[in-house]
Amino acid sequence: MRTPDQLLGLIEDYLLGIELSSELGDLGDSMRYALAGGGKRIRPVLCLATAEAIGCEPERALPAAAALELVHSFSLVHDDLPALDDDAERRGRPSTHIQWGEAVAILAGDALLGEAIRLALTYPGPAVARELIEATQGMIGGQYLDIIRSGDLIELHRLKTGRLFTAAIGLALEVAELPELEQAPWRAFAEELGLLFQLVDDLLDRDGYVLVHGLEETRRLADEAAARAQAKLVEIGVDTSVLEEIVQGLVSRTS
Amino acid sequence: MRTPDQLLGLIEDYLLGIELSSELGDLGDSMRYALAGGGKRIRPVLCLATAEAIGCEPERALPAAAALELVHSFSLVHDDLPALDDDAERRGRPSTHIQWGEAVAILAGDALLGEAIRLALTYPGPAVARELIEATQGMIGGQYLDIIRSGDLIELHRLKTGRLFTAAIGLALEVAELPELEQAPWRAFAEELGLLFQLVDDLLDRDGYVLVHGLEETRRLADEAAARAQAKLVEIGVDTSVLEEIVQGLVSRTS
Repeated sequence: MRTPDQLLGLIEDYLLGIELSSELGDLGDSMRYALAGGGKRIRPVLCLATAEAIGCEPERALPAAAALELVHSFSLVHDDLPALDDDAERRGRPSTHIQWGEAVAILAGDALLGEAIRLALTYPGPAVARELIEATQGMIGGQYLDIIRSGDLIELHRLKTGRLFTAAIGLALEVAELPELEQAPWRAFAEELGLLFQLVDDLLDRDGYVLVHGLEETRRLADEAAARAQAKLVEIGVDTSVLEEIVQGLVSRTS
Repeated sequence: MRTPDQLLGLIEDYLLGIELSSELGDLGDSMRYALAGGGKRIRPVLCLATAEAIGCEPERALPAAAALELVHSFSLVHDDLPALDDDAERRGRPSTHIQWGEAVAILAGDALLGEAIRLALTYPGPAVARELIEATQGMIGGQYLDIIRSGDLIELHRLKTGRLFTAAIGLALEVAELPELEQAPWRAFAEELGLLFQLVDDLLDRDGYVLVHGLEETRRLADEAAARAQAKLVEIGVDTSVLEEIVQGLVSRTS
């Protein structure tokens, strides 16, 4: 079993070596810039760890894991635009539209989504791409709730953050071609994990759940979600030690 | 054989009845606005006519044809944005970002691409979606050449306009599951058609080829492309009368 750090190394190498569609030309430079922003690559690492726990070589899940990171990257590039969140910085670097201009950033985001789909379509069947695009549409729906300042913060975050997070697990199931009947406990685990990630996010940012339920209650909800996630893993009955470690990391993360 | 007008009716009805991903919520209103702008639906009509010429029910090609129109619509919504072409009008109506705001227009474009992929993934295999996403990436590469004002106008238009145009044929081939060995003449026809469309576009707009070769030479190139396209159809040896009619319409169009 690969450690989370080894899986991170795998996905970083894969993302560095990714071949973009040649017809994109130099637009690829801005896409690589957006992708290289670092970050914890938590979604692809989760995808690879899940694949390995199911008994599938993590290497086989690399295109799906990378596709998910590309969708995440696309969402950040468009979210940072002046018309949306108007963020000039992303992880300590100029955001993509500051570095490359707004027009290029819009197209770079579009093309990152396109490349994600291309990667997802390198698998023999359409199931991986279907899983990815459903999650992407949910995420975009969450971005929409965010800009229209919809009242339902919980639903907003379930879509905007949770959908790509739970897709990390769903993609691994589809890559490993796990029969649908065996997928239920994994998908239940994914839901708890998405919720956990959001709760800890809100604890760190003091928004979302914290605004609705308060700090203490949100901490309690996070601990409960973590406990349920760990319980789901035990229930699944394969070696999920690496995933347990990742869940523990999510609970105690400070950034 | 359905006439071009009957095929237009089919695709208009299908687009009106399209079910968007429920998680997009009210963002769907702006997407439907962008889609409802009218236009000749030339790409989906071509796709349906090609499918029928091959012997495949046009109804089977409807999701692919609609997907192509959604990609076209996504490209117009983003192209009209202030950071790109800054067009306030589209076919006599306020463009999407004028009607719905810039943030919503960016997300509506993203989601139109996503829905296009979802439609392409309703087919059993991944071939239709692959065809669509390759063309989409080429089109985005063309938009990029446009905003950086690259010198190569011919390549710019081949990508920006031609790629979705030739995909109209390619998608029909994949929907009909035409063996790859039999696809070559169809794909050659598609190339001539994409070129023809672009040449006539440039004749109407007095740019592109006209700037490079002059008006008379461009007219001659268009007539030659049309003749080669018609010759390819004869070569294919099935009933392509509806396609011949569409080619003739492309040559003589005035808008």
